[in-house]
Amino acid sequence: MAKRRHNFNAGPAALPTPVLEAARDSLFAHGDAGAGILEISHRSADFEAVIADARETIGELYAVPETHEVLFLQGGASLQFAMVPYNFGPGGAYIDTGTWSSRALAEAQTIAHATGVWSSAEGGYRAVPEEASQPKIPADAAYLHYTSNNTIYGTQYGYTPETAAPLVCDMSSDFMSRPIDVARYALIYAGAQKNAGPSGVTVLIADKRYSRGFAGAPTTPKILRYVTQAAKGSMYNTPNTFGIFAVGQVARWVRDNGGLAGMAARAEAKAATLYAAIDAHPLCTGHAVEHSRSRMNVTWRMQTAAQEKAFLAAADAAGMMGLKGHRSVGGLRASIYNAVEPASVDALVALLEGFTG
Amino acid sequence: MAKRRHNFNAGPAALPTPVLEAARDSLFAHGDAGAGILEISHRSADFEAVIADARETIGELYAVPETHEVLFLQGGASLQFAMVPYNFGPGGAYIDTGTWSSRALAEAQTIAHATGVWSSAEGGYRAVPEEASQPKIPADAAYLHYTSNNTIYGTQYGYTPETAAPLVCDMSSDFMSRPIDVARYALIYAGAQKNAGPSGVTVLIADKRYSRGFAGAPTTPKILRYVTQAAKGSMYNTPNTFGIFAVGQVARWVRDNGGLAGMAARAEAKAATLYAAIDAHPLCTGHAVEHSRSRMNVTWRMQTAAQEKAFLAAADAAGMMGLKGHRSVGGLRASIYNAVEPASVDALVALLEGFTG
Repeated sequence: MAKRRHNFNAGPAALPTPVLEAARDSLFAHGDAGAGILEISHRSADFEAVIADARETIGELYAVPETHEVLFLQGGASLQFAMVPYNFGPGGAYIDTGTWSSRALAEAQTIAHATGVWSSAEGGYRAVPEEASQPKIPADAAYLHYTSNNTIYGTQYGYTPETAAPLVCDMSSDFMSRPIDVARYALIYAGAQKNAGPSGVTVLIADKRYSRGFAGAPTTPKILRYVTQAAKGSMYNTPNTFGIFAVGQVARWVRDNGGLAGMAARAEAKAATLYAAIDAHPLCTGHAVEHSRSRMNVTWRMQTAAQEKAFLAAADAAGMMGLKGHRSVGGLRASIYNAVEPASVDALVALLEGFTG
Repeated sequence: MAKRRHNFNAGPAALPTPVLEAARDSLFAHGDAGAGILEISHRSADFEAVIADARETIGELYAVPETHEVLFLQGGASLQFAMVPYNFGPGGAYIDTGTWSSRALAEAQTIAHATGVWSSAEGGYRAVPEEASQPKIPADAAYLHYTSNNTIYGTQYGYTPETAAPLVCDMSSDFMSRPIDVARYALIYAGAQKNAGPSGVTVLIADKRYSRGFAGAPTTPKILRYVTQAAKGSMYNTPNTFGIFAVGQVARWVRDNGGLAGMAARAEAKAATLYAAIDAHPLCTGHAVEHSRSRMNVTWRMQTAAQEKAFLAAADAAGMMGLKGHRSVGGLRASIYNAVEPASVDALVALLEGFTG
């Protein structure tokens, strides 16, 4: 079996080879630190340099303004589902475009009052709101929460929603994939394990109005207040040091490969190739409606489950992995994050074109 | 400079060489998975095998009974400071033996009612309660929380406290260092970054009476209920996959090197050597009272700050790292976790013996 297959995993997912090389080179001895990257203190000058570099490189990629700051937390997007209402207060408005946004709303409602203002559940989560007909957000909404890319259903926003409310975005599966005007967001959060690194670290870009003050309930645990971590440079407690190192390396790789604009162009080209092959194939139907198609997760079905099974077997034989749709929806899915080479997409397209059921 | 120095870090800390080798060997291709350990799905059979192995090896080391289970979470001990009161309810009793137990109590009191029942703060946290004179725990305590080893002050329990209340222990800095009767605990939790692995993963051993049911407030976020993760095999959301892999490798290394009894003997021998050198040295005074001395973190002072500074410089020149006391207490500290070789302790002792200020 090939040591490294074409990796279409939804996450944890493919990482750029230079990132793996950097991890390898730091494993037994990180520079002159005298120990490996897993073994140095988070309070050491060596790790301070690692976290500062990760913070600054992400800041540079996104042109993060002085009003905002980058944080590194733990617990994945799922912990943010709780931290957002704890920090932004009750009365959030949620746009439901799939499993994760639905879970975010449910968790917010566990803690306090929160409202769903739009959902594509009925159509099988095939779309996000069209830019020209965005849902109306209640004037008194404490914040508006949306999911920029829906990993499971393969839909993605092509724009930043308009709202007067503080804008909160779960950007887990398209973080670092395209330029974004950070200034428009009160909070961006992203589990790193798609485009940005290994699992176990969550990257946040927060408006300091929300990360440097706390206006929530006094019964909110300190560890769940953004200000607690922000005031300590993401080191109120021991962070996932290796995860932050890896995210920093990914950010450097993005910077060295055209930055976010370069990533966006690359993603656009890969996605266009794959969607074209799906649209042209007599057995295939894309899941997402066209205006909502994701450049990160491409989802489609064949006419029968037997065809899908046969295709997965052919893909496996051709050295590909990760093409089975999420267990909650079935079908096929190719996650084509930043680190997935165009050659992998080309190989998938060639396989698809030759597949007759 | 030596690529790998004698590593006396308090955490993240030294890891056994075979663990680093396993990480290196899995970095680009984990077995036949077709991708590196950072890049495989947490839902893949390959990762299921990784987490099952970690769970079972820890189960074997501690002889975890059927009544208990092993979980892998994120957020460090600090997130447990909040999860414990959320899951065990208000009315916890806390024994305060240092910074971390004090923080645990403060976090519990943020959420609900909780009480400190004993503290060694006044004496500079030089002791834990003596076994023969354990503090009286209120009969209606929802649980008793203690910290088995105090990383900063260098004190450690040599026994398991007697109590009728469910016993909860922060075992972060002596987990995997000695045999424990797990059946006596309602919950053991440990940030892995001392004896058990890299930072970013928290290992729990929980009595299923507490991890398989939830009796807390309905406003508790789902992500903070033990049952949420327990019911999903620690994969309610994407876990720190690499961290779990590394913890599993550490557990295997412990098993292959005499198990917990072997680790305890090794720790006892290293600590005895170092304490003897400190006690014999005219310039040195141990911080902890004798009955509370830690086998993991050895803390001491010299007569003057200038001597300590000179000793740190000499240690640095001799290829040692991590010997500065915690910034909150000063002095000197040698953390001699499982992975610190006896030869490193011998080198430190030799340096100390030759040090005249």
